[in-house]
Amino acid sequence: MMNKYFTLLITVSLLLSTTVSSNAQTSKKQTPLVIQEQGSFAVGGTVLKAAGTFDPIKQGAYHPAGVDPAGQTLHGDHAAVYYQIPVKAKKYPIVFWHGHGESSRCWQTTPDGREGFQTIFLRKNYPVYLIDQPRRGNAGRSTQSGTLTASPDEQLWFGIFRIGIYPDYYPNVQFSKDPKALEQFYRQMVPNTGPYDAKLNIEAVDTLFNTLGKGILVTHSQSGGPGWLTAVKNPNIKAVISYEPGGDFVFPDGEAPTSIVLGGRTITPPTIPMEDFMKLTKIPIIIYYGDHIPDQPSTNPGQEQWRAFLEVARKWAETVNKHGGDATVVHLPKVGIKGNTHFPFSDLNNLEIADLTSKWLEEKRLN
Amino acid sequence: MMNKYFTLLITVSLLLSTTVSSNAQTSKKQTPLVIQEQGSFAVGGTVLKAAGTFDPIKQGAYHPAGVDPAGQTLHGDHAAVYYQIPVKAKKYPIVFWHGHGESSRCWQTTPDGREGFQTIFLRKNYPVYLIDQPRRGNAGRSTQSGTLTASPDEQLWFGIFRIGIYPDYYPNVQFSKDPKALEQFYRQMVPNTGPYDAKLNIEAVDTLFNTLGKGILVTHSQSGGPGWLTAVKNPNIKAVISYEPGGDFVFPDGEAPTSIVLGGRTITPPTIPMEDFMKLTKIPIIIYYGDHIPDQPSTNPGQEQWRAFLEVARKWAETVNKHGGDATVVHLPKVGIKGNTHFPFSDLNNLEIADLTSKWLEEKRLN
Repeated sequence: MMNKYFTLLITVSLLLSTTVSSNAQTSKKQTPLVIQEQGSFAVGGTVLKAAGTFDPIKQGAYHPAGVDPAGQTLHGDHAAVYYQIPVKAKKYPIVFWHGHGESSRCWQTTPDGREGFQTIFLRKNYPVYLIDQPRRGNAGRSTQSGTLTASPDEQLWFGIFRIGIYPDYYPNVQFSKDPKALEQFYRQMVPNTGPYDAKLNIEAVDTLFNTLGKGILVTHSQSGGPGWLTAVKNPNIKAVISYEPGGDFVFPDGEAPTSIVLGGRTITPPTIPMEDFMKLTKIPIIIYYGDHIPDQPSTNPGQEQWRAFLEVARKWAETVNKHGGDATVVHLPKVGIKGNTHFPFSDLNNLEIADLTSKWLEEKRLN
Repeated sequence: MMNKYFTLLITVSLLLSTTVSSNAQTSKKQTPLVIQEQGSFAVGGTVLKAAGTFDPIKQGAYHPAGVDPAGQTLHGDHAAVYYQIPVKAKKYPIVFWHGHGESSRCWQTTPDGREGFQTIFLRKNYPVYLIDQPRRGNAGRSTQSGTLTASPDEQLWFGIFRIGIYPDYYPNVQFSKDPKALEQFYRQMVPNTGPYDAKLNIEAVDTLFNTLGKGILVTHSQSGGPGWLTAVKNPNIKAVISYEPGGDFVFPDGEAPTSIVLGGRTITPPTIPMEDFMKLTKIPIIIYYGDHIPDQPSTNPGQEQWRAFLEVARKWAETVNKHGGDATVVHLPKVGIKGNTHFPFSDLNNLEIADLTSKWLEEKRLN
């Protein structure tokens, strides 16, 4: 039964937010942003090539339906990156990587139409890079076919994303109770356009950091796990900030905890060679979890997985630190910040979350 | 069989390093952009609702595979909009609507990594709104299921988008011959995530103009046709600028030309009631087509369709003007601007195209 409830442990995850046009009218006038450069590019990816020869004249129809692939290519599986570089930019850019069902949009705004982390961190003078991971959103071109099923599932996400226990909001939730905000939040979701493949995603973000040089990686939910592996792979990643990562923290071989129970079943986090794991002890790492995550097992699936993942996170940080690293887990309500959902960066108090995060960057001399 | 046809070249293309990040180093330092506000929102769309009752506790799995839709909703078919408003903004915002297989990314940059129309028009002090139309890119959540087929087709697009006759570039083409630019161009493409539905797209853009108030609509290629119908529907659209629209210009009932031949077959443009058509005579309209569109029928499908569409465009502008309107068709090589592809706004001479366009806006007192 629990098995039915909780199947994919490692691939978990999350999403985020947006509303908008009311912004101009309702928000108080901000200081203008001063941007030196902005643009977009693709990074990573693979190429599919069909055997045969392409004939530009015989290969007739201008509509792709029925097009003969002979001799043609398909470039796919790349990430799409949108970037903005402020004037007087700080040294390290921040790369923002969305979670499950989300896209770069989760950083662009909030469900109630305020500024997202994209703009908030630009105001703090960080160059900002927003990713659409391979096979998602504006990086939707996939080298593998896929079927998209339109099946209603939003009330489930309402719970998993810890807005409340549907149809009730958590009373203190940092999420606007204006129905328009919830609608914008739902409309922020974006499907996979091909099979989810963490390896492709890691390759794309690895390539991005090869291009950018040194910088800071921010992950959320499902990108948490691939984020750890990308940081193992790429020494240009000088810090990782992870909002509510899934339970797939990578432990050194032989050191994964065996005591974590999720929905009544034991879950075992993945492991990697100690040599690789040690790379995660060389950079500062901070992990944030929001509110409404119980200490004890819960029958509410919207809380239970996060309880288990927070437990993994704590054990993982202990392991990192035991091996000489610098990993911190912040359970926000424990430091007096209440009501956060699975999307602290777009919650009503996202300015406070941003300040907390940037203060940490200062402490680590990464600003 | 598919495996036999296709070879997966695991190229992990390390693309773009020069295309992108070198931008900061190699391009001459531009004046900074000064942005008053930026963000994102969803607009339009429909809601799917499954019968039954949702139980947040029993409704277990947090992974959507196998989730029981009972009592749940799916918000989809909206457009996603990313916007930037400069300080000292001009009165009318410009809404940019991509074409087939594209997304908002086509306005964000150029294949060779220069500034796209998004940034160029911000520099001209226009508020800029970029759309991902319903079921595309970051508006990928669809209320109808769909199958995405990964079938190589890029050499076809090389021809249809008039970069050249594959594998040859047109000698004077306004497209960088650096292979990295072509790769970036290919990686800009994004599939539909559900059935293409022009009606949904029109509704979303109509709703956007209801939200924004008066503004200017820019269309490209496939969005040309729905763009005319949106302008019929929404009086807030004060002008239409269309880059290489498709052949579905809307004529008044009984006035569609019957003489247009495409690839040896007669094509008949759609018609609408005269009362609706007359709305298109109340606003200034300009239509641009690029180079390598022949005057006579061609066996090259990459040229033939544009020859036919340009012929429709001319007859349509005549019809609009005959009924008192103000429609202009500019065939760029005829005014001395050579080598443009199907994407004049991201071609090597896109600054010149932008100047031409903004001069027209000035003439029409829309600046």
